[in-house]
Amino acid sequence: MLRANLVRSPASSAFPAAGEWLSPMTVDTLMNTLQSGSSGSKGDLAANHKDMANALRALSMDAVQQANSGHPGMPMGMADVATVLYSQFLKFDPARPDWADRDRFVLSAGHGSMLLYSLLHLTDYPEMTLDQLKNFRQLGSLTAGHPEVGHAPGIETTTGPLGQGLANAVGMALAERLLNARFGDAAVDHHTYVIAGDGCLMEGISHEAISLAGHLGLSKLIVLFDDNGISIDGPTSLSVSDDQAKRFEASGWDCFTADGHDPEAIAAAIAAAKASSRPAMIACKTAIGFGSPNKAGKNSAHGAPLGVDEITATREALGWPHAAFEIPDDVRAAWQATGAAGAEASAAWDQRMAGLDAADRAELERRMAGDLPADWQDSFRAYKEKLAEEQPKLATRVSSQKALDVLAEAIPELIGGSADLTGSNNTKAASQKPVTRDNFSGDYIYYGVREHGMAAAMNGMALHGGVLPYGGTFLVFTDYCRPSIRLSALMQQRVVYVMTHDSIGLGEDGPTHQPVEHLAALRAIPGLQVFRPADAIETAECWELALQSSDAPSVIALTRQGLPSVRKDVSENLSGHGAYILSPAEGERQATLIASGSEVELALKAQEMLAADGISAAVVSIPCWELFAAQSQGYRDEVLGPDSLRIAIEAALPFGWERWIGSDGGFVGMQGFGASAPAGDLFAHFKITPEAVVENVKARL
Amino acid sequence: MLRANLVRSPASSAFPAAGEWLSPMTVDTLMNTLQSGSSGSKGDLAANHKDMANALRALSMDAVQQANSGHPGMPMGMADVATVLYSQFLKFDPARPDWADRDRFVLSAGHGSMLLYSLLHLTDYPEMTLDQLKNFRQLGSLTAGHPEVGHAPGIETTTGPLGQGLANAVGMALAERLLNARFGDAAVDHHTYVIAGDGCLMEGISHEAISLAGHLGLSKLIVLFDDNGISIDGPTSLSVSDDQAKRFEASGWDCFTADGHDPEAIAAAIAAAKASSRPAMIACKTAIGFGSPNKAGKNSAHGAPLGVDEITATREALGWPHAAFEIPDDVRAAWQATGAAGAEASAAWDQRMAGLDAADRAELERRMAGDLPADWQDSFRAYKEKLAEEQPKLATRVSSQKALDVLAEAIPELIGGSADLTGSNNTKAASQKPVTRDNFSGDYIYYGVREHGMAAAMNGMALHGGVLPYGGTFLVFTDYCRPSIRLSALMQQRVVYVMTHDSIGLGEDGPTHQPVEHLAALRAIPGLQVFRPADAIETAECWELALQSSDAPSVIALTRQGLPSVRKDVSENLSGHGAYILSPAEGERQATLIASGSEVELALKAQEMLAADGISAAVVSIPCWELFAAQSQGYRDEVLGPDSLRIAIEAALPFGWERWIGSDGGFVGMQGFGASAPAGDLFAHFKITPEAVVENVKARL
Repeated sequence: MLRANLVRSPASSAFPAAGEWLSPMTVDTLMNTLQSGSSGSKGDLAANHKDMANALRALSMDAVQQANSGHPGMPMGMADVATVLYSQFLKFDPARPDWADRDRFVLSAGHGSMLLYSLLHLTDYPEMTLDQLKNFRQLGSLTAGHPEVGHAPGIETTTGPLGQGLANAVGMALAERLLNARFGDAAVDHHTYVIAGDGCLMEGISHEAISLAGHLGLSKLIVLFDDNGISIDGPTSLSVSDDQAKRFEASGWDCFTADGHDPEAIAAAIAAAKASSRPAMIACKTAIGFGSPNKAGKNSAHGAPLGVDEITATREALGWPHAAFEIPDDVRAAWQATGAAGAEASAAWDQRMAGLDAADRAELERRMAGDLPADWQDSFRAYKEKLAEEQPKLATRVSSQKALDVLAEAIPELIGGSADLTGSNNTKAASQKPVTRDNFSGDYIYYGVREHGMAAAMNGMALHGGVLPYGGTFLVFTDYCRPSIRLSALMQQRVVYVMTHDSIGLGEDGPTHQPVEHLAALRAIPGLQVFRPADAIETAECWELALQSSDAPSVIALTRQGLPSVRKDVSENLSGHGAYILSPAEGERQATLIASGSEVELALKAQEMLAADGISAAVVSIPCWELFAAQSQGYRDEVLGPDSLRIAIEAALPFGWERWIGSDGGFVGMQGFGASAPAGDLFAHFKITPEAVVENVKARL
Repeated sequence: MLRANLVRSPASSAFPAAGEWLSPMTVDTLMNTLQSGSSGSKGDLAANHKDMANALRALSMDAVQQANSGHPGMPMGMADVATVLYSQFLKFDPARPDWADRDRFVLSAGHGSMLLYSLLHLTDYPEMTLDQLKNFRQLGSLTAGHPEVGHAPGIETTTGPLGQGLANAVGMALAERLLNARFGDAAVDHHTYVIAGDGCLMEGISHEAISLAGHLGLSKLIVLFDDNGISIDGPTSLSVSDDQAKRFEASGWDCFTADGHDPEAIAAAIAAAKASSRPAMIACKTAIGFGSPNKAGKNSAHGAPLGVDEITATREALGWPHAAFEIPDDVRAAWQATGAAGAEASAAWDQRMAGLDAADRAELERRMAGDLPADWQDSFRAYKEKLAEEQPKLATRVSSQKALDVLAEAIPELIGGSADLTGSNNTKAASQKPVTRDNFSGDYIYYGVREHGMAAAMNGMALHGGVLPYGGTFLVFTDYCRPSIRLSALMQQRVVYVMTHDSIGLGEDGPTHQPVEHLAALRAIPGLQVFRPADAIETAECWELALQSSDAPSVIALTRQGLPSVRKDVSENLSGHGAYILSPAEGERQATLIASGSEVELALKAQEMLAADGISAAVVSIPCWELFAAQSQGYRDEVLGPDSLRIAIEAALPFGWERWIGSDGGFVGMQGFGASAPAGDLFAHFKITPEAVVENVKARL
């Protein structure tokens, strides 16, 4: 392992005062170093380096100033590190941003977005024009306040909510290893680099991400920690005293430190990190807002424009006499050369791919394109037909497992997992083998009790491409991973959340484990599909829909308790309409009973009881609000019967149900938190019964 | 520092394989140790200890068996540790469970609830009868599946969602130090003990909690880690390789290890932890399900009854011949003596309190009772009158700060803070001083970028009593602390969440930072008050309501952008009605414009524009749905004008609004995620304008 020019973090150092190194004197020293030029032996590189890094600084401070909004401090502080990374290490080709084997670069400290935009502009990503930089943070520009995947090539993930990028990167590095195990070094062999700040490392999700990466030994993951000793409120010593290196080492990482303004030290550290057999963290000691005479090393550089006068002073201090947004030709050329250099590696990969077995190549291309295998539905169709025939009585979590048993064989890119609830979530298909640090050929991940890390890793896996992740926990613990679920939706990623124990039907574990508001809270997230199937057939249908939704995440809410089959026919995926008439009214429809999941059974029983009393009711199953909302008004009216009395039945709070039942509709469900007792007792106690439905209908008719 | 009989964790140990020590051989050895009696010198204590611990094991396995549901493994594994803690260290008085200076005991691994219930029963908490244990997990019993605060004295917090208890305990230990700094050692001087499992330590919240506790040097916090090497999916080596001791040490903790089945080793470790000047973690090496010949040390002991045969075998292995739920008199007497011993300490505290200055004593009693100072509203009333006079144009986050400037002086138990957004959340009142590890006399906490840890700590502070916590972050980041917000509501704790940047009005930071679904997602949580005030006066009113709600948490959603005053009169707290007619219609009301927060201004402008066109509209401000829902139907109808066209205006998604506007109402607001641009551009782009309101009204009338 290379250790030259490195200060390796001492593993057993005394407990340090955070941010201690960043005294004003140190900042001054750094400024002097910069102004006098680097003292290393590679004079030309150093000279080039200085101007290249200053170009990033200038563009960043100018764009923030022009927008009168944004974060100049981080790009200016990390400009040297980013320059070394992009010019000496990162494998990328601006002409081919979707190159499967590119290194992934994740700006977890997403508020420093101008660093990324400046890099993409200077290395010649065609879309990232100077005009885009000038329109930083303006409506319709590609240069949003925080990087948003899909806005412009070269942005690998949407960051801003702290810690998410770091955890996405764990998923990307994991996807790389999974694909490497399947397709070999010639096809898949790349690194994932992350820039993370103090904020990322304070967030709890960082623990889950670091711990998981260490456990899996993701040695191609390299975190560049912007160790600037400053957060928004002031010096980090206000709020944190962690020895970060020791912490990472406790989770099985290799740690290095480097002067984040010394290009040779940075390069040596990255080289050592690449050589390590563990995931690696490099604490880059930097000054936030480096170059600004009055704001460097201070929290005032973090989140506001420097101001016109300070920008002038900074230009002078940096020795950067050029006008705003002006990049001298030689500096631009140096950056362009950096971008152009990637063409060679990308062409070499093409050659290696050409040497690959044609079927393997086609398979990798298919997976990276996100297309499902052409014949994946064959076995699944047969499975559904068998369900129609056998009419099993199963908990939908068990139905989900049976569906997965078939799907995992048909869709090899499926990567399952659970946050330490494998046997309860029923997420492990019969054919699936565990992924371990020694063997990445498996397809099931024991994520541990890390719901948030799991969800964010799944986002990273989906973004990387080539794998199709799903993962489970209890529905109530969607709260633990909600920031990542939201990002799945914002980024339109195909991630499937298998969320079992979806109501008071879980019974004795009580209100801490019983979701009552979670269906509503998830339905409130735009772009997220929330499925709640009623039986084995609907469960299979919801899985089909989730997998076919290449640009949307899905939650599949499943019961702990057994449910009878309610569907007999599988000729059409009726769940695809979001809601449908499961059992029509006999004669003129007086009431419409609208239910999801486990309460469809109750609705059917109530329908029978009402019929015995001469009241004609239809039963509507509504496994997915979002898909139903997308239907035509005509279809929705046909299903809901607006002229009939509408009663919703769901073992959850009524929040949001008024949309489907109108102001004068009835609701049979929960009105507050649940309780600890056997499930049957709870349904009776909370009056979620066919009798209660009948009573409600009669009182309103 | 005491180190006798201790294996101190080596700080620089090599990276270990998790759970390695827990080979079957080790479990056998432990069983042999138990069966042959402890080999220590304190023979009587050891003999007593063995039976006392076995009493906990027997009650736990019997109750789980009787319920046919629950988690026997943890109580059986940690029975020795709990016996040592309760019999030798914990300061508690079962006859006086609300004794202010008692030690706090938190079962963070809440699934092991039978351990706690057994302890409370055996130490003679009057409510925790044997019948309650026999009714474990049944409807209406005090013995819910997971411990729920308020169900029975001696339960300090509701646990089950992993990691929460640990983070609550940080808040409790912090509250203890804050009160100690104010009232002295004689009045407040106690420890907080936590039992946490592998799951708690895998959750991200544990990082935030541990890091915060280490930073603040909470030396009276002691974590007993149930280091059993097992989680639900199997051995922890499936999913985690962390060196936990090294990790805690990286955050400034002292760490110890102890054989969790050797009472002397446990006692020595706790004594050392108490003597440490840092927060301390003791890794208690235990076998899950200790005593069960076939399930000890296996995940099969974790979450299901042992079964009748295995229970018989376990009785034999433990040398516990007694029938189910039967406790022999001598063992019961030993446990009762343990409980009774607390009376002395509690009486001694009474004596010390009697020696305290009478005003101090009264003040501590007032704070612990949760009563606000008698005169707290005097200055606040004057403040509100000033607002009515001055009609300021302010962002509501600034109005909130101005309110806090007054409140912090009037209510000394207010403890503010922010998750590293102090200047943005405007949470620091003029008079507030930071709390540091060297000085706990302050009243403002720099929580760092730890939203989840902050929220859970605030729950712990509220549960401890004597302090009244509030804390801030951006509204969008309620997602990061949602599990703790939910627990604030479930536990009915007065915690105030100051959530600024409450809509696209925050502008350029873009969709990652713009809440669109969060108002709905929070309103969906039962028992949580969600306030969204429209101006400085409503902001003051919402603060009043939040502070007066002694048994409910509140979220106050506040704008980044400036807003005009919309209220003139402060004679009544109109926000207390939840919604009210802010500006009545002239003549017969044709339309009702219902808005919250920043959109009330738009509604008032639309009202004017409509009036100019001869359309009579009323404007309703709705700062709190929950309070409005609690009003009489008559009042609600009066406000909403069900016969008028109702239009809701809120810069958020319509989810849930149908409740107030009916099926035929209109909605002006968001329909999906936001975008990055200046706020004004966004309101125009998303058509949240008075013109859009007017258009919507005209189209529908």
